[in-house]
Amino acid sequence: MKTLVVVSHPEINNSQTQQFLMQGAKMLDVVWHHVEGLEKIDVNKEQKLLMEADRIIFQFPLYWYAAPAGLKDWEDKVLTRNFIYGDGNDNLMDKEFGIVVTTGMPLKDFQRGGSENITIDQMMAPLRAIADRAKMRVLPVFTIAQFQYLKENQQMQLLIDYQRYLTQKYPNSLKHRQEWFIREFSDRFKNFDETNYSECETILDTFIQQKEDLEQLRSTIDLIKQGEED
Amino acid sequence: MKTLVVVSHPEINNSQTQQFLMQGAKMLDVVWHHVEGLEKIDVNKEQKLLMEADRIIFQFPLYWYAAPAGLKDWEDKVLTRNFIYGDGNDNLMDKEFGIVVTTGMPLKDFQRGGSENITIDQMMAPLRAIADRAKMRVLPVFTIAQFQYLKENQQMQLLIDYQRYLTQKYPNSLKHRQEWFIREFSDRFKNFDETNYSECETILDTFIQQKEDLEQLRSTIDLIKQGEED
Repeated sequence: MKTLVVVSHPEINNSQTQQFLMQGAKMLDVVWHHVEGLEKIDVNKEQKLLMEADRIIFQFPLYWYAAPAGLKDWEDKVLTRNFIYGDGNDNLMDKEFGIVVTTGMPLKDFQRGGSENITIDQMMAPLRAIADRAKMRVLPVFTIAQFQYLKENQQMQLLIDYQRYLTQKYPNSLKHRQEWFIREFSDRFKNFDETNYSECETILDTFIQQKEDLEQLRSTIDLIKQGEED
Repeated sequence: MKTLVVVSHPEINNSQTQQFLMQGAKMLDVVWHHVEGLEKIDVNKEQKLLMEADRIIFQFPLYWYAAPAGLKDWEDKVLTRNFIYGDGNDNLMDKEFGIVVTTGMPLKDFQRGGSENITIDQMMAPLRAIADRAKMRVLPVFTIAQFQYLKENQQMQLLIDYQRYLTQKYPNSLKHRQEWFIREFSDRFKNFDETNYSECETILDTFIQQKEDLEQLRSTIDLIKQGEED
């Protein structure tokens, strides 16, 4: 699977979050494409990049409940009507479309009645509508809130979740997760000798199992909490 | 009431719709402010313009389910956090916020299951969220669909509705409508002599009444149609 990450940030070098994500992306076989970094937008070249990808990710910080102007400019120029759906074209049909959005606000602010009074999902509706128009398959949004407050182990967890978002097969089933971990970590562990390698596999299995258990527990807790709030 | 119309269109001179609306706006005492026409964005000057207005309208054609990049760029630069809500600021509090959006697609496309699969209201949620954050009062969106297909009398009707959207007191009650018509048309008729003037007033009253009746009839027809479709 080929993944294209279309990144928009007007000051990407000053963004800790984007630099961190870039390190994560560089460990994988994905195309990192920073739109504000382009000297000029060559529409044909950009459209070719999109057509070569199986999964297209838009990644950006939230500026006034949407992507920065740089991404909108890129959209307005690159996504010509004819390329997306005109004249019976369907150049992006069946490709996957994902969004990685970062925000300095806590997640709880993004709900009706919260201080932002709108959900992330509502804000992303215009982008999703483009994907719908292009007959793409829409992935759930990947939100990173308050990166600066994450502890180191949380950052590591985020890094792996982000990497999975970029390259793990969809939907996010146990099988796809296991396949991803084995593929990615086999690569990373390939300098280990055989004894270590099989040990790593065991660790990996345990890790995945623990992760499953944790997620299960979290869901249960969420359900209990919901019950209490009712 | 002072109205500021923040217009965004990358090729405004080639847009029949925008030229038509500009003529309508010029008949009124409103500030027409074209963001792509600015040599550079002077943040202080723009913020001052906003503060001087009682009603702020964003006006633009729909590009990929949102405003053109030019408006987003203006937003990202002018609407600093500090100006909108930081440090206890509320520079735009209680001002009215409206949106005039134009589209070449028919209105029926903008619904779940329609070819655009999203409503105008859903698309405008990020802009509304800004207004909420600034504690502004949000007006209903004014949508102009397929201007190029309107007949001359429909264009005239649109012109008046648009003018009312820019300067008529909110909410859109019969009283406010009558006040608006009398104020605006008195001005336009001021060169008439007294006999003519009172005649005009009668015509105006009849016109307003007919408009009410028409709207009532249209609602009834819509209800009947809905009933048929159920």
